[in-house]
Amino acid sequence: MIKTGLETLVLELRKFSKDRDWEQFHSPKNLSMALSVEVSELLEHFQWISESESYRLGDSKKLEVSFEMADTLLYLIRLADVLGIDLIEASLHKISLNQEKYPIALSKGSNKKYTDFE
Amino acid sequence: MIKTGLETLVLELRKFSKDRDWEQFHSPKNLSMALSVEVSELLEHFQWISESESYRLGDSKKLEVSFEMADTLLYLIRLADVLGIDLIEASLHKISLNQEKYPIALSKGSNKKYTDFE
Amino acid sequence: MIKTGLETLVLELRKFSKDRDWEQFHSPKNLSMALSVEVSELLEHFQWISESESYRLGDSKKLEVSFEMADTLLYLIRLADVLGIDLIEASLHKISLNQEKYPIALSKGSNKKYTDFE
Amino acid sequence: MIKTGLETLVLELRKFSKDRDWEQFHSPKNLSMALSVEVSELLEHFQWISESESYRLGDSKKLEVSFEMADTLLYLIRLADVLGIDLIEASLHKISLNQEKYPIALSKGSNKKYTDFE
Repeated sequence: MIKTGLETLVLELRKFSKDRDWEQFHSPKNLSMALSVEVSELLEHFQWISESESYRLGDSKKLEVSFEMADTLLYLIRLADVLGIDLIEASLHKISLNQEKYPIALSKGSNKKYTDFE
Repeated sequence: MIKTGLETLVLELRKFSKDRDWEQFHSPKNLSMALSVEVSELLEHFQWISESESYRLGDSKKLEVSFEMADTLLYLIRLADVLGIDLIEASLHKISLNQEKYPIALSKGSNKKYTDFE
Repeated sequence: MIKTGLETLVLELRKFSKDRDWEQFHSPKNLSMALSVEVSELLEHFQWISESESYRLGDSKKLEVSFEMADTLLYLIRLADVLGIDLIEASLHKISLNQEKYPIALSKGSNKKYTDFE
Repeated sequence: MIKTGLETLVLELRKFSKDRDWEQFHSPKNLSMALSVEVSELLEHFQWISESESYRLGDSKKLEVSFEMADTLLYLIRLADVLGIDLIEASLHKISLNQEKYPIALSKGSNKKYTDFE
């Protein structure tokens, strides 16, 4: 049976943690913190540049950014595995909820939060 | 051709943004901020509970947590799409780098950062 | 006239930014990102340790933590200065609002969010 | 003896926590998470607006922003109190370190991180 990318990552991370006896540190609480730390390392790359500059990162910056994004995905997958959550299913579900929260007629071209719709 | 879960999400998000004319707001800088905000909404669920409690969330809390994780994945995928980054490839690459940074012999059972190895 | 600690910091930061011609980077949007990055550097120190360990940091760790907290305060003060917000006044106001949101009778010994009170 | 704003806040927060029997939840680890959550609520106000828009918030938005900044300051002060850290002293110390890390000659008009100086 062929594994998709995500399933491969789940198994790699399980092995990585088990080999290092790190399951003891991987409580959902701790993993949520680690996830937050990684996202901020990503944010750091964008903090002093303009929006338009953020579209055209140089090659070396783009590689660093891709690694911070990878770390974010890895902790997210690990947390989902520990909690027994199906990320893809939850995401498809969330997209359908967002379609209800943000009907095209009300949200087109607007950056308002749904709670601010009139 | 069969699409994997991630590829489906990329396409759904593209359509979602295009339908609402939201590409104008989706600069990498802004998306990195949105990603950070979603991760903190996840963190909020864990801030006052203990590590052991974080393993056994009730059903309704677990559903909320799964939606915050979904939002995190969705912004991560959207950012990768805008920047032209292959998340799975970057993640496999990052795992192999982490294997070098954290050799089993030095990291087994330890919560030290690699920069603190002696 | 004697300046309090906070006022001294406001003036130091103004001078620091002006000397380096950094006002151009200090938009409220960017400063909010920088603030978030600093808080995550603080969070990083606590991510893999237990709650009880977090009370007894060693001297060198405690010094590092104090510097991350300082960076957080400095960006917070700088942001308040750029936006023209009185942090102390806002904080005293917020405490009185919190007293209403969390009446002692409902919140004593409980880690529930006020939206979950019954 | 006259108390400065910060000292007043320290005492108010101690009383607030004691009255609600919340000291049990206020481990440094948990407080660092709460601090991060508050900063993200601040970040949320800025995520979809431009840098120039972020300078001119309307009155009601500015009030909301000031409350998120207050929450940030309050958790920062509370954490400093629990850890026994003098925030003002640490901040003055950090400013002097930053002056060394960012000499005017190298950093004037530049948004580079000190590690990227040549």
